[in-house]
Amino acid sequence: MSLPKRYLMTPGPTPVPADVLLTMARPIIHHRTAEFEATVAEAVRGLQYIFNTKNDVLMLASSGTGAMESAIVNCFSAGDKVIIARNGKFGDREKSIAKAYGLEVIDLCYEWNQVVSVSDVADALAANPDARGVIVTQSETSTGVLNPIKEIAACVRDLSDTVMIVDSITGIGAMECETDDWGLDVVMTGSQKGLMLPPGLAAVSVSEKAWRAAERSTLPKFYFDWKKYRKSLEKDTTPFTPALTLIQGLSEALKLMQEEGRENIIARHNLLAKATREGVEAIGLQLFAPPEGRGSAVTPVWSPEGIPAGKIVKIMKEDYGVTITNGQDDYKDRIFRIGHLGYFGPFDIITALTALEMALTRLGYNFEQGASIKAAESVFLNAH
Amino acid sequence: MSLPKRYLMTPGPTPVPADVLLTMARPIIHHRTAEFEATVAEAVRGLQYIFNTKNDVLMLASSGTGAMESAIVNCFSAGDKVIIARNGKFGDREKSIAKAYGLEVIDLCYEWNQVVSVSDVADALAANPDARGVIVTQSETSTGVLNPIKEIAACVRDLSDTVMIVDSITGIGAMECETDDWGLDVVMTGSQKGLMLPPGLAAVSVSEKAWRAAERSTLPKFYFDWKKYRKSLEKDTTPFTPALTLIQGLSEALKLMQEEGRENIIARHNLLAKATREGVEAIGLQLFAPPEGRGSAVTPVWSPEGIPAGKIVKIMKEDYGVTITNGQDDYKDRIFRIGHLGYFGPFDIITALTALEMALTRLGYNFEQGASIKAAESVFLNAH
Repeated sequence: MSLPKRYLMTPGPTPVPADVLLTMARPIIHHRTAEFEATVAEAVRGLQYIFNTKNDVLMLASSGTGAMESAIVNCFSAGDKVIIARNGKFGDREKSIAKAYGLEVIDLCYEWNQVVSVSDVADALAANPDARGVIVTQSETSTGVLNPIKEIAACVRDLSDTVMIVDSITGIGAMECETDDWGLDVVMTGSQKGLMLPPGLAAVSVSEKAWRAAERSTLPKFYFDWKKYRKSLEKDTTPFTPALTLIQGLSEALKLMQEEGRENIIARHNLLAKATREGVEAIGLQLFAPPEGRGSAVTPVWSPEGIPAGKIVKIMKEDYGVTITNGQDDYKDRIFRIGHLGYFGPFDIITALTALEMALTRLGYNFEQGASIKAAESVFLNAH
Repeated sequence: MSLPKRYLMTPGPTPVPADVLLTMARPIIHHRTAEFEATVAEAVRGLQYIFNTKNDVLMLASSGTGAMESAIVNCFSAGDKVIIARNGKFGDREKSIAKAYGLEVIDLCYEWNQVVSVSDVADALAANPDARGVIVTQSETSTGVLNPIKEIAACVRDLSDTVMIVDSITGIGAMECETDDWGLDVVMTGSQKGLMLPPGLAAVSVSEKAWRAAERSTLPKFYFDWKKYRKSLEKDTTPFTPALTLIQGLSEALKLMQEEGRENIIARHNLLAKATREGVEAIGLQLFAPPEGRGSAVTPVWSPEGIPAGKIVKIMKEDYGVTITNGQDDYKDRIFRIGHLGYFGPFDIITALTALEMALTRLGYNFEQGASIKAAESVFLNAH
């Protein structure tokens, strides 16, 4: 089409509100100043609000993978046993990091369209009373599957030397994550997701139990050494040069999020996800995630028989300016994923579904045109 | 003053050109796209031009300290012997990182206003033929002192299993750094310096010899594992979500730098540094760095007797909007540092010197007003 109006609908990076983009485009200031320290303090308070926690929340200049690595190197020592329950690409990555640092991994591996089983984790803990940690991804970016973090955490909570580590990179800012109420010791997110920022900044919350684990840890570390960040936070600063503009943008984004309110943000994401699900089902497509594990950050959908997901993604992007994404690894051409995480409203879902309908029509898929829009519209109407 | 027009004149972060700020404020795109891959390829080519190298140049989503750590964890194993020649805060940091990873450090320690001695390094290499690396900071951010990298590298070049690692975080993009001609195996920089970007991105060049060292290295690593970055670069991408907007900004900044040309950039910085030095000397101030080690990224100056550097910095910032910085650690109140690294021209130096003169006058320092401007003006006039 002639006007290349573009829509980013992937599970990360996500769109950044113009106010936040412009905040980050302001002239650079120095980071060792009262002005920036006030921004750091404000950002940390906002993160605590969004994480539902009184724990320390540390900000790292890295992508989410850096935050994942920081949890491993700060909580454990070589040879420590950890239970990793994984059902997607980022669970696999947790395992790779743990292995790289010489941990002994009790590996609970699931199909990508299964949720992690709470009883399996409980059994693994019973069989391995010396396990020092349980690591689970809340919302798998690769599949949109939501794992029962609250219930898993309940199995870990009373174990004094076992920490519950949650990769909520695609969860925080979209889905319920009650860090303190659920007893989550380490929760991490990345900037380019629910926080509505460009990538390059990560945040990690650390409980008292996790700080005790950090005292025991002997793995080598420097850049990701949490203690350095905690000490600097006492003065509202960072041990190394921070991702300055991203923290300024974060502070602005968190203002928007606090204005909307945690519960409203979660309700909005639930609504958008529901509309997306009912929309795609109304045109005969099958959802990838099982009913008990459907997250609201991204909706993964099986590509129709005979149509590779990559073709749908390509037409939507090249001809209609709508960027969704296909699957990863084994699911590359078998599923596509519609992101609705962060700066999204109902009309973005309508846009995504319309572009999808147009692409599917051109690819010869047989369905009733407009049916997905009608279904989504009903979801939005019923919300009032 | 009523209009708060502000000037950032610290050795990092440095001012970012408006074109670059606006490039980074464009709507977010996805990173796994042909569009972003072209940007990555362009950025890498530009970095190779600025680094003067045909080596791989890897981009990390981290601050400069992350790049320093990446050199340690990729080139060495626990117990390896490295020679660290240090004369400032960032040399100290190299030592701390090496110690955190269990290396044996041959510690060549100098006063902060001394340059590293080439013959000391040669002697240390002769006494420790098993040394696996020599680590030196080219331009110490903490002091502006410039170390003789070319000459030090010449001592290392013919040793087949010893790598020359250069922290050029405040050097690249301002001072001569002939990566290939001088035989520098690892050179690193951070985005918020000569590259004229916000902080949060680092770049590291890796020679064939350094890749051989990486093959031997057994230190645990994941996020900073160079091999993952090299493999991804074959497809013009990154192993983990990149600092997307910073790489887009980098590509834009590198265009500006390539238009100006490497030699012209270095000549400009030399001229600005010379004008700054002659300016401050003309009003009776003493330069901190010795004549044989004066870098052109930042000019450190002894604060006059009885006037704490912090007071000068405070007046310049609060009353005149000009942000320079004082010393670090032992030199906190004894020196101040005028940055002229990156996006700087002659009138920035005039601004800095004028603000300095006004602050000094108010603090009771006795000198001939305008003398620093006259001296700087002469330097600029003589350049034509």
